[in-house]
Amino acid sequence: MNTNKLLDNAQTKWTSGGNKGDIVISSRIRLARNLAAKPFPHLLTEAAARQLALQVREALAKSNLKYFYVDMENISPIDRQILVEKHLISPALLDDARGRGVAVSEDEAVSIMVNEEDHLRIQCLYGGLALNEAWQDIDVLDQKLSENLNYAYDQELGYLTACPTNVGTGLRASVMLHLPALTMLKKTGQIFESLGQMGFAIRGIFGEGSESKGHLYQISNQRTLGFSEKDIVERLNRVVEQLAEAETKARKDLFKKNQNSMADYIWRAWGIMTNARSMSSAEAMEKLSALRLGVSEAIIKQTNNVKLNQLLISIQPGFVERKLQTEAPNSQISTMQRDWARAEIIRNQLLNINNNK
Amino acid sequence: MNTNKLLDNAQTKWTSGGNKGDIVISSRIRLARNLAAKPFPHLLTEAAARQLALQVREALAKSNLKYFYVDMENISPIDRQILVEKHLISPALLDDARGRGVAVSEDEAVSIMVNEEDHLRIQCLYGGLALNEAWQDIDVLDQKLSENLNYAYDQELGYLTACPTNVGTGLRASVMLHLPALTMLKKTGQIFESLGQMGFAIRGIFGEGSESKGHLYQISNQRTLGFSEKDIVERLNRVVEQLAEAETKARKDLFKKNQNSMADYIWRAWGIMTNARSMSSAEAMEKLSALRLGVSEAIIKQTNNVKLNQLLISIQPGFVERKLQTEAPNSQISTMQRDWARAEIIRNQLLNINNNK
Repeated sequence: MNTNKLLDNAQTKWTSGGNKGDIVISSRIRLARNLAAKPFPHLLTEAAARQLALQVREALAKSNLKYFYVDMENISPIDRQILVEKHLISPALLDDARGRGVAVSEDEAVSIMVNEEDHLRIQCLYGGLALNEAWQDIDVLDQKLSENLNYAYDQELGYLTACPTNVGTGLRASVMLHLPALTMLKKTGQIFESLGQMGFAIRGIFGEGSESKGHLYQISNQRTLGFSEKDIVERLNRVVEQLAEAETKARKDLFKKNQNSMADYIWRAWGIMTNARSMSSAEAMEKLSALRLGVSEAIIKQTNNVKLNQLLISIQPGFVERKLQTEAPNSQISTMQRDWARAEIIRNQLLNINNNK
Repeated sequence: MNTNKLLDNAQTKWTSGGNKGDIVISSRIRLARNLAAKPFPHLLTEAAARQLALQVREALAKSNLKYFYVDMENISPIDRQILVEKHLISPALLDDARGRGVAVSEDEAVSIMVNEEDHLRIQCLYGGLALNEAWQDIDVLDQKLSENLNYAYDQELGYLTACPTNVGTGLRASVMLHLPALTMLKKTGQIFESLGQMGFAIRGIFGEGSESKGHLYQISNQRTLGFSEKDIVERLNRVVEQLAEAETKARKDLFKKNQNSMADYIWRAWGIMTNARSMSSAEAMEKLSALRLGVSEAIIKQTNNVKLNQLLISIQPGFVERKLQTEAPNSQISTMQRDWARAEIIRNQLLNINNNK
């Protein structure tokens, strides 16, 4: 692993797909952890934040965990953005680079953000529905780290966190779902309302405050206090299985009633994605959704979900901009150039054109 | 020649293109002729109209002109529509089939409508800018026919016609032009206004009352009285050359200023045309215009103007409906089925798929 490999490559652990990969893009478990007797990150001085980051890296080394550490201060804003686009860090880590960083495992399944809202945000992210696997892996990692880091823990409350909503297990489980049929049939409103009542949050794919694009939704538990880790994971797992079933049924209905117009919708998206010379990320997200549906319904056979998952990353602004910066360093890049480059990335990926210039 | 060959085939003389074929789709000369001492068609009884049609066919035979005669009474409304779509007859001939027909030359360059507004409407239609050739050919034909038909002619006024606007030479010269750049640059309004002042009429491609679609315009002389045939043809020829020059310049400007967005516009049209599963004729006309421009600017190399000219015919409602009727005779055809079949015709033509089912 090196920084360039990490940043140039749109392939990452979760893009390889998995169980129910037609509907469940990825599954994530993250733990919020803080070191005892240290102010939470927003109260840390710059020097103390850097010191804490060092302490975390030492603990990783002592625990024999070979993680690649990226210091936010050493990479450009665009490169930080790319880590968000790969879902290896949260947008919140971008607010201030000082003393912040992320440790990434070789396969990019695990990342540990340092000095985000909490001292540590440990996450495990897999493709498909894999909440249990992610929980098992993160639990082992958490144990190992706790041997070399003194976590802030209260016998009554559990793990202490910067924000009270994370107190307790400090665990958040989330999944990224592709729900085009439920969306088109206007069934998400009702479903999401009842999910909200059950204590789940529904967001766009870049987390809090982000809009839903391309029929993609992130669903996560809101409540952690009073639930065991196992409860949280199992509850979300059950909900995702139900949602996947509802989406599968909705797709059947949709294609049964609108076979021709759905085929037309999907093939037009393919035609545009493989031919357009300029494309905004919003349009790309929208067309990607149609292609994903086309692959799932065996209408589009020229590509697959793994490639489409990678596209989900490589069409994002940071990724496109880094590609352009590599070709022409230090140049001012316009939206037009970015949209042009994005269209090229999409064509090359979908038509298997290997463009090594 | 037989009726099926004439109606199944989207290829016709003018689709093969010609001089300035990037801009000038086709050139047409038509003569209005009437037989002396016979009421004009709208005053003819049914029996008299049929008798007159027979007389014309006899004259053709006597003049050794091997024309294929299509009696409007013997073909279905859809098939009549196809003859309009191939520009072999005018929409006016569809108003009433009784006693009406058209004689078509083997290469489909010449057609003689019988009992349209006048007893005879003789037209010669070539691809590209070929008004002189069309005039020369039609003049020879007119001479031959006049040997066996007694034309209504007045020494003072010239040829007598049902509508006073045609009296004199009875000649109308027209061209079908593709003017996407002038249209996009909003320069057609001013140009067409001055053409109107000069006595030219600008119409859509299916003649009087038809809308302009796909940046295609039909330009013809309005005045015939007081001008010689040579004058009319030469005046239109000069105007077309000027228009073609203006359009060429406008294309250069358009692509210079908007290279990327024009390429995107053209490639998207290609992507949609080669992938869509459903397409209205209005959208097809619009996308065809983009492809034609793409071919002209050497952006699209996968097709050519000859194929696009044929598409201009085969995407029309009558043509599509006949194809569907051939596959499933006597069935009720919905707009959805027609749009589906149109998209298939387009894909097959553009991707060179030979679909012989």
